[in-house]
Amino acid sequence: MAESNIRTVDAGKLRECVEGIFLYPDLGGLSGLDAKTVTDTLIEADLRGVHSHGVMRVETYINAIAKGDIKRNPNIEIVADLGSRALMDGDRGMGQVSAYRAMTLAIERAKEHGVATVGLRKSRHCGAMAYFAMMALPHDMVGFATTNAGINMAPTGGKTKLVGNNPFAIAIPTNREWPMVLDMATSVAAGGKLDVAISKGEKIPLGWALDKDGKPTDNPIVARQGSLIPVGGPKGYGMAVMLDVLCGVLAGGRFGAGLGAPGSSQFFMAIKIEGISPVSEFKARMDELIDQLHACEPTDLGGRVYVPGEIEWNNTQHRLKHGVPIPVTILNQLEDYAKQAGLVSRPSTW
Amino acid sequence: MAESNIRTVDAGKLRECVEGIFLYPDLGGLSGLDAKTVTDTLIEADLRGVHSHGVMRVETYINAIAKGDIKRNPNIEIVADLGSRALMDGDRGMGQVSAYRAMTLAIERAKEHGVATVGLRKSRHCGAMAYFAMMALPHDMVGFATTNAGINMAPTGGKTKLVGNNPFAIAIPTNREWPMVLDMATSVAAGGKLDVAISKGEKIPLGWALDKDGKPTDNPIVARQGSLIPVGGPKGYGMAVMLDVLCGVLAGGRFGAGLGAPGSSQFFMAIKIEGISPVSEFKARMDELIDQLHACEPTDLGGRVYVPGEIEWNNTQHRLKHGVPIPVTILNQLEDYAKQAGLVSRPSTW
Repeated sequence: MAESNIRTVDAGKLRECVEGIFLYPDLGGLSGLDAKTVTDTLIEADLRGVHSHGVMRVETYINAIAKGDIKRNPNIEIVADLGSRALMDGDRGMGQVSAYRAMTLAIERAKEHGVATVGLRKSRHCGAMAYFAMMALPHDMVGFATTNAGINMAPTGGKTKLVGNNPFAIAIPTNREWPMVLDMATSVAAGGKLDVAISKGEKIPLGWALDKDGKPTDNPIVARQGSLIPVGGPKGYGMAVMLDVLCGVLAGGRFGAGLGAPGSSQFFMAIKIEGISPVSEFKARMDELIDQLHACEPTDLGGRVYVPGEIEWNNTQHRLKHGVPIPVTILNQLEDYAKQAGLVSRPSTW
Repeated sequence: MAESNIRTVDAGKLRECVEGIFLYPDLGGLSGLDAKTVTDTLIEADLRGVHSHGVMRVETYINAIAKGDIKRNPNIEIVADLGSRALMDGDRGMGQVSAYRAMTLAIERAKEHGVATVGLRKSRHCGAMAYFAMMALPHDMVGFATTNAGINMAPTGGKTKLVGNNPFAIAIPTNREWPMVLDMATSVAAGGKLDVAISKGEKIPLGWALDKDGKPTDNPIVARQGSLIPVGGPKGYGMAVMLDVLCGVLAGGRFGAGLGAPGSSQFFMAIKIEGISPVSEFKARMDELIDQLHACEPTDLGGRVYVPGEIEWNNTQHRLKHGVPIPVTILNQLEDYAKQAGLVSRPSTW
């Protein structure tokens, strides 16, 4: 990608601008707290290097709000409450907002019951799942978060798109500055990576996606009309279906072919560590595991072995200091919105 | 593989023979109940077509018992009990026996608490994880089971084996004759498939494994000295590490490099469906999802789309009727053991 297509901007200024856009009544029109939550998930994703779930999503969200696909003031409520298990209804609000509340509930309930699950239906795209899984970390819990996605993969043996590349994240507390975090889609590559390639005008590797006729393609626009390839073939397909069951089928939300229309379901879980093992001993064992992995002899390509989530943490530290690289096309969108919202601080002024 | 290397035998006779071997004091030396449990997991795996976890394992188990790596009469006990969360110690007994007890406890506790997790340390190789996840099905629960395995994969970016291709299984109740079941290792191919290829004298596909020097190989014997390739590269590596944390690190059992020596840890979970959703409605939605997947237009290669676990169910029905195909080398081993155990019914007499 040409250097000139990217500009590196200050994370704090970017945050302020995006929050202003989500707050402005004719654009986001969200409450102060909700605008903060949504913005935080997007900036965190950009800081972690997961641009597919960062501020490049702002336009999609603003459009969905304008069309009424996403409600500004949803009535998010608990529709079934069994203590350690609960089910929430997101009432078609911003996915990040309902997901944040659902994971908060899962953590509260895990404090009381040791382990808790919260299902969420009538939610929307909620950004990177890592954000929600990681909410469990300050509580010394294992966090798990998953969502179903719009249908974008064909089941193994089939031609038609019928499952999403449903992603999941799991977060584990450690003694280090950074937790261990895995956040992955069940396709070879996340769908958002196609959008990143489109926004940068780049090709994608063969093996990521098929065109509408099921043939391999390296064109991200053609791929977006086609389908993503499940990771490991039947393994990725199988995981995607199982996560759809945990999210959509269990919650009585959209699932399977129903995900051709907007709307997602999610599933959150928190498991308290204390009691199963003293947290200090658990973390000491995590230290040992991390040290072993770090000491692994690197391949002949050089570099070293990273623990899941470590690269994203390094990205965050680097970007907080040196700025976040954002495609100019995305900054231009934000500039337009910021002008509409009358924001003094906007990309052109940074 | 030459037809003559395989013989198709009656599942009932095979079961009786293997149970007799595990009961015989100088061979298995297990109690009646334990011999039945171990045998059932092996026969179920062969019926499902997962021969890597079927009766071909008998020799390994008998040798491990003879060497004292596996105890005949372990003192399996609950070492931490928090109600919805428990931790068990398998005391180096047969993995199937301690895993069966741990999943039984998870189900009991999920009946009471809605969701429950049970960790298990000082366990051993316990066969196919699907068996344990599926124990939740008659209780209309979602079942989850995972184990860490001996180290057989290099972490992404590394040369040395440091993680197992830790497998997991998830089982979902349906209205159909067959449940939805996913059981997968986090490598491209399960390690047991290398053993199957060795026992059949077959090659393995390139892309499954690397030799000792990290080069691709299609020789299963060379591959067993080398390492398996994680499914989806960093995704498979990441899942394997996370499952090792849930199993080994959380339970305070063996984990990471510690898995160079015998000993596994496991993690079991059961989630009650009733309450989150009426079970009948949940299953009606499962029907809908299954119908959608079955109606998917097949690829130009023909065939049709299967739901996870459906092929294994079809295998079981076919094999119960027409017999289980077992390599003659394995039947010869069983013949020897059966003779030692003085069993009248043994492969040569069928």
